[in-house]
Parts: sequence; structure tokens; C-alpha cells
Amino acid sequence: MNVLPVEAPAAAEATNAGRTAHVIAAIRARIATRSLGPGAKLPSIRKGADLFDVSPSTMVEAYERLAADCVIQARPGSGFYVLSSPAPLVLADLGPRLDRAVDPFWVTRQSLEAPAESLKPGCGWMPPDWMPEQDLRRALRSLARTGATSLTDYGTPLGLLPLRQHLTRRMAETGIEASPSQVLLVESGTQAIDLVCRFLLEPGDCVLVDDPCYFNFLALLRAHRAKIVGIPFTPSGPDLDAFAEAVATHRPRLYVTNSAFHNPTGATLSAATAHRLMKIAEAADLTIVEDDIFCDFEQQPAPRLAALDGLQRVIHVGSFSKTLSAATRIGYIAARPDWIDGLTDLKIASSFAGPALAAELVLSVLKDGSYRRHLQAMRSRLAAAMGETRRRLARLGIAPFIEPRGGLFLWCSLPEGHDATDVARLALADGVVLAPGNVFSVSQNAPSMMRFNAAQCADPRVFTVLERALCRA
Amino acid sequence: MNVLPVEAPAAAEATNAGRTAHVIAAIRARIATRSLGPGAKLPSIRKGADLFDVSPSTMVEAYERLAADCVIQARPGSGFYVLSSPAPLVLADLGPRLDRAVDPFWVTRQSLEAPAESLKPGCGWMPPDWMPEQDLRRALRSLARTGATSLTDYGTPLGLLPLRQHLTRRMAETGIEASPSQVLLVESGTQAIDLVCRFLLEPGDCVLVDDPCYFNFLALLRAHRAKIVGIPFTPSGPDLDAFAEAVATHRPRLYVTNSAFHNPTGATLSAATAHRLMKIAEAADLTIVEDDIFCDFEQQPAPRLAALDGLQRVIHVGSFSKTLSAATRIGYIAARPDWIDGLTDLKIASSFAGPALAAELVLSVLKDGSYRRHLQAMRSRLAAAMGETRRRLARLGIAPFIEPRGGLFLWCSLPEGHDATDVARLALADGVVLAPGNVFSVSQNAPSMMRFNAAQCADPRVFTVLERALCRA
Repeated sequence: MNVLPVEAPAAAEATNAGRTAHVIAAIRARIATRSLGPGAKLPSIRKGADLFDVSPSTMVEAYERLAADCVIQARPGSGFYVLSSPAPLVLADLGPRLDRAVDPFWVTRQSLEAPAESLKPGCGWMPPDWMPEQDLRRALRSLARTGATSLTDYGTPLGLLPLRQHLTRRMAETGIEASPSQVLLVESGTQAIDLVCRFLLEPGDCVLVDDPCYFNFLALLRAHRAKIVGIPFTPSGPDLDAFAEAVATHRPRLYVTNSAFHNPTGATLSAATAHRLMKIAEAADLTIVEDDIFCDFEQQPAPRLAALDGLQRVIHVGSFSKTLSAATRIGYIAARPDWIDGLTDLKIASSFAGPALAAELVLSVLKDGSYRRHLQAMRSRLAAAMGETRRRLARLGIAPFIEPRGGLFLWCSLPEGHDATDVARLALADGVVLAPGNVFSVSQNAPSMMRFNAAQCADPRVFTVLERALCRA
Repeated sequence: MNVLPVEAPAAAEATNAGRTAHVIAAIRARIATRSLGPGAKLPSIRKGADLFDVSPSTMVEAYERLAADCVIQARPGSGFYVLSSPAPLVLADLGPRLDRAVDPFWVTRQSLEAPAESLKPGCGWMPPDWMPEQDLRRALRSLARTGATSLTDYGTPLGLLPLRQHLTRRMAETGIEASPSQVLLVESGTQAIDLVCRFLLEPGDCVLVDDPCYFNFLALLRAHRAKIVGIPFTPSGPDLDAFAEAVATHRPRLYVTNSAFHNPTGATLSAATAHRLMKIAEAADLTIVEDDIFCDFEQQPAPRLAALDGLQRVIHVGSFSKTLSAATRIGYIAARPDWIDGLTDLKIASSFAGPALAAELVLSVLKDGSYRRHLQAMRSRLAAAMGETRRRLARLGIAPFIEPRGGLFLWCSLPEGHDATDVARLALADGVVLAPGNVFSVSQNAPSMMRFNAAQCADPRVFTVLERALCRA
């Protein structure tokens, strides 16, 4: 018998319906994580009622609804059993039970599905008119004139060599030394991290993340059934005492972090923190995934863990979805040669080859001198937008955690007593997608924080709606 | 203690070096599959020697080499232990130990990495000049004129609606009824199957495949640590007695198969087989993945399992990599609405969004009337190439398993006494990539079979090299 009661339901939920829902959710979670396997017997009504501290009728109701959903099965005279066909992996059932409004998928789905006229200060990317559209049109026309092979054939397993060569030169600018054969092209930065997780993680392995961190790290790690431990994040990087303690206590397999501009805080790793962090990782034989997708927002390169480490235990990951195009994506992994070899087999197994045409397009834009000019103009425009956004937020009593050196994001605390999830829910009704703090927090300790994307805050209605939501929340 | 001896080494290997290699391989496999976890103690030298039926000195040698490779660690006075940092997932270490030349990755890597001048009758796709190059050029130019959003923004979670609508109309032509909200766009057919495996499989779950089957199914399922069981394949589909028995014995979670032209045999599922197969699947609550990537090669549609089943337990998967472009790929999954919902969350977690621009390109080609004309011309050209290839193979004494109604592939037996792996190895030295039978066979029962791609057999040197290899093998 493996059904342990979960935390007591919140007071607001402690109605009959709330109690039933709570029991159902707890049992579904046990089945999703396979702590209750296919065919497992569930506790009797009486025993279940004791365990969950509910009445027998609540327990009956919960079992009946689970049976109606074909999750469990009643065998007359014998009891209740998990249906033999195992439940699919439902990500929303893994991890802590959250209000759907602070589920890591909430911001993503709202942002991706929002109608064109919505305002999206909570989303993680720039509006189309901030992107190098003309460079892309030029790249498409140029590709339309090239040889048939690059239009129709699979690429090589590692991916387009001239792009890998270009990437090694870019990485060298931040001190990362890699040969082109140490670079594997994949479909996106997310796919890069996913491939690394497949390569290194077993279900149940512990992974450290920053708290707060990019919310999709949490979704991805839950999909790998990792045990996620958050490390409090400071303006100069992770809190190293907490990091060292977590390493000693949990013996994690991986630490996943952002270099350059940390998402969501916008903070930059200091040289001293980077050095001490690497010493702890080396002593504990810990592997680190350094996700560097914001590097093109940087004016001055911050320290890179991969540079300190020489790609021994650090796996460096990047993409161009934020500054070039999110429609034709390329991700890359730079790592030890033997790991690249294993990752390449996994890439073949899970996506066969590619993305060949996207690689040609991205290379064509990167080689074009106008991309560097685009980046310079974008950084100036973003710095101005950041200042303006900060001023407008200040008028509403919303204060940033730090003043980032650049990048897209302002991580802010709402005025005393406001819950960011409530504010986000109210703003959504007015067509504004916000990013409440707890979607970024594994410990759920950021209820009054919110991430703002300065490039998406140009429209003054963002602040009108926000002000109204603050008044009502 | 979990180290079980594996099958006795083949006679040719029963040298000292062979015995040591055998012990090392067996231990590595146990570590790769985590039946020996990090930190696990290995058997003592004496006990290991008994278990593997080797001399203690062979055992010492094996342990020393594993320790030198940092796989295990000697703790003086205590014994040998699996190193605490777990080994990454090395696909080549999973499944049976094979000659690298019949590894599922062999054909893929050789085909993808072969220099442009190589001949590739063993590869699974068409040469560039068989692909609709002009349609693609037109689509690229047209895309260069469209709005910025489709060039730079992430797509919606399900993917481009007009393409999903187009796909539902295409599927309706083979009797598959699906609404656009039951269709999820992904990066490729392989990624589609991978996502389904993530959704439905746990490590250790049993999956049925055809024997022979597309070799990358084996690689992909090994990456999911599935237990793979092969079902002998007949000219009208899987052997149903063997299928029913495997379902009863192994209680598989999934059956993965090709409809339309089966890879590698080129066979077509008969209506009677499809019907009986679905009855067995229904009775056992078995889920089926129907991979339909060869549908555009069909003149007359064969029965589709998804059509019989109404997308209840069949998940239908397709792509355009074989007939439109392998450089800008799109895969799709059609399934039950609640499964599409779970698959979409998994897609967001593992690749975030997309592929938006590839979807625009593929839709642009599909809508263009010239794509249908391209398909008609391609099928005629392929039928002629198939006839010519069959005649040339017959002159070398190579006989097809069946005469396929169409498609790319001829699955053939070599003349008596020839080993396809030896022939493939010799031909590779002459710049010809072949596909030896055992890469397709989970039971390794196709040592004298070989798959030929008729579209890649136009050059007469293919047959000169093949003849020479047959003489020498």
C-alpha cells in the first residue's frame, strides 16, 4: 500500500467537493508517477477514508469518479484496482498540485494561443517587429536559388558544418573553446536540453535548478520524472551555500541554469560565483547544463561556466529563437566529444536528422553583416524600453528585484498584499497575458513576484489593465 | 547480485581476448540498462569467474579494463563497484551486442554521412532529383513575401491550423476521420512516434514491432528502454497467430507498424488481416501506432487501422520527408482528443513550439496543384525503376520477398550462402551503402536478406559493385 495522504487541502477547498477532488488528484498523481502501478490494489473505502482523513462517502465518491474516468476498476467482492492499461504520462498530474493558473504550461499556452491583438508582457520573446524580418526574407530568397540537395535532403547527423564552424567562432568570443565536431545541431534550445536529459537522467534522478528559473525547465524535468530541487537565486547567481548543501544532501545528477541574462531575474553570474560554483561541481562530479539562449542580448559577455570548465562537465546549449526567428529554429549542444557521439545516436533515434533547411536559413542570416547591426539596434531599443517599463511599473508601486544590465526581463515584486496569480487571472480577462512569479518557482515562494518583458510593454494599455487588476485583486 | 551470464560467446570469439570482451560487454550492458545501478557492488573475482564461466585471470582483466574506462572502481580491501556517477545512456550498449555493421545506426549514419558521389541503394529516401524541387523554390519565394509573424514567431501549440485542416482532408481520403483539433504538428514522423512513446511507455514496457521493421523503430524503442518483441511479417501483414500469442504472453503496451508500404518489405496490409488484428488489439486493450509516412506512394489506398478503429486506440502518424522534403520536415499525430491534449503538453515541455516556418512551407507545396502532378510522375518513374531494379537483381540471383504494389523498397534474399552483412561491408569499401537484413530484424533472423531502394538503383555501378561483393563474400 503506497497511497500516502498529501498535504491537507487549503481551507477554501475544504468543502465536500473540494475533499473529493483532493482525493482524486492524489490518487491520479500516484498513478501518473507509477507509485501505484497498473493492476495495483487500492486501499479499502474505510482504510482510504482514514488515510485521507475524509468520510467514507467522500472516498466512495472519489473511487466512483475515478472508475467512471476508466482510471480504476471495481472488482465486485474484491475491491478497487488501477486499470491494467497504464495511464499515459499526464504532465499536469506530476509535481505539486497547482492552481491551473500557476501551472508552468499556463503562461506558455496563453502566450502561444493568445489572439494577435492580445498584449503579452508575460511572454518570453520579442514582438515580430523587433525581429530581423528583412534578413530572413533575404535568406529565404537566397535559399530559393541554391542547389536541390539543401532543399530536399536530410542533413548530416551533426548538422551543417559551416554553421557549426560559425558557432565555434561565436562561442570563442565568450571564451568557450570547442571544435566543430563538438557541436551538435538540433531543432531548438529546448530540444537540446531534452536530449541531454535523455542522455544523462534516469527517472527519479535529482536535478538542481535555480529558484526562480525558466518555467519550462520545470515542465521538461517533470517529463523526465526527475526530482527537482530549487536553489535560491541571488543577483550574482545561485546562493552557493544552499547549492553546496543541496549537492551534499541530494547528490544531484545535473544542474540546469542560464548564463548571460538569467530567466526570469535578468541577473548575471559574477566571476567569483562562477568560480566557486565550478569548484563545488568538480568536487561532487556534478554535470551542468548551461543554457545560453540570451547571449545575443549581451553588450559585454558575462562569465560562462563552459569557458571556465573547458567543456568537461559543462554542457553548453544555445539557440536563436529569441533574436533571429522562433519560426525557423536551430538549437545547438557543445560538449565533450564522447558525449556528442552518444547524443548524436539519441538524436538519430528520436528525430532522425535535421533540421537542414533551418540551419541553412540561420547560417545565411548570421553570416549577413546586417544581423550584427540588427543586434546593436535591438539592444539600444531594448535598453530604452527597459527604462520606460521600469518607470511605468514604479508608478504602480511595482519594484524590480535588480536593475539588469540588459536582456528582456524585469523580475518585480507587486505592492504589498497582492497575489500575482490573482492579478494575472484578472488581467487575462482584459486580454493581457502576465507571468505570475510562482510559475517560475519550484518552491512556490514567489507569490507576489511577476516577470515583465520590456519589449512587450510598449502599449500603455498594459499598465492600464495592470493597474485595474491591482485595484481589484 | 544481478549479473547474469549472457549467452555463450560464439565459437569464433572463444579466445582469451574474446572472453574478456564478452564479460566487459555484459557488464556494460547491465550498467547501461541500470540493472547494475550506480554504486552497486560487483561480484568478486572468483564468483564472477564462475558466473561467466571464465578463468579468474580473464575476470581480473575485464575488471581492470572497466576500471581504466572509469566504468567501475576498485575499492582496496572491499571489491569492485559501479562508479557513482551513472553512465550516460549509450544506445549501442542496449539491446543485443551486435556487430557494429548490423547496428541500427549503421545504415543511417552511412547514408547520412556518405559523400555526395556515393551510391546509396540501402538508404530509405529518394535522390534530390526525384523531389519536387521547383515547388519548394516557389514556396520559399512566396514565404519571403508574407507577413513577419510567420517568419519570426512561434506557432500555436497544435501548429498551423490551415495545414491541420488540409491533413484532415487527406486522411479522409483513406477513411480516417479526424477533426483538426485531433491533429498535432511536430518536427518529423520520428519525433511523432517519440512523443507517443514518451506519453505511453515506461522503461521496461513491452512493445511489439514487425520482424523485419524499420530499423530506427528499434533504436527509438531502445532509447525508451522498451522490451521489444518482433512479430514475423507476412506478405499481407503481421502473422496473426504470432501476434495473438505475443499479446497474451507479453501484455504489450504498444504495437508499432507501417501501413501503406511496409518498411522494409514493401507489403500492404490486407483488409482481413487489418480487421482480425484490430479485434485482437481491442480485446487486449492494446494501443497501436500506425506510421503512414509512405502514403503518398500509393496509387490505391490500402486499409488503414486508424480508419477501422476511428482513432480510439490507434494513433496515426505521418510526415512528408519522403515525398516533399527531408530538409524542412513536418510530422503529425492524429489521435483521441484527450491524448492530443497530453501530447501537446509534452511537446511544449520537450520542444516548446513549432515548427512554424516548415509548416508554412509544406502547406504551400501541398496546396499547389503541381504537387499532385509531381506525385503522379514520381509513381510512374518509380514503377519503372522498380521493374528495372528487379530485373538487374534477378541477374545476380537476388530474389524479392514479394512484388510490391509500389513504394520504394524491394526486400530480397541474396543467393544461397551469402551473408548480407559481409556483402554490405565489402560494398561500402567500394562506395556503395547497402542495407543488410539484420538491421531490420529484432530476432536477427534476416542474415541473408537485403533492402533495395529502387529510386537509388539507377546507376549501373550499384550492380557491378554488388556482383563483386557477392563473389568475394
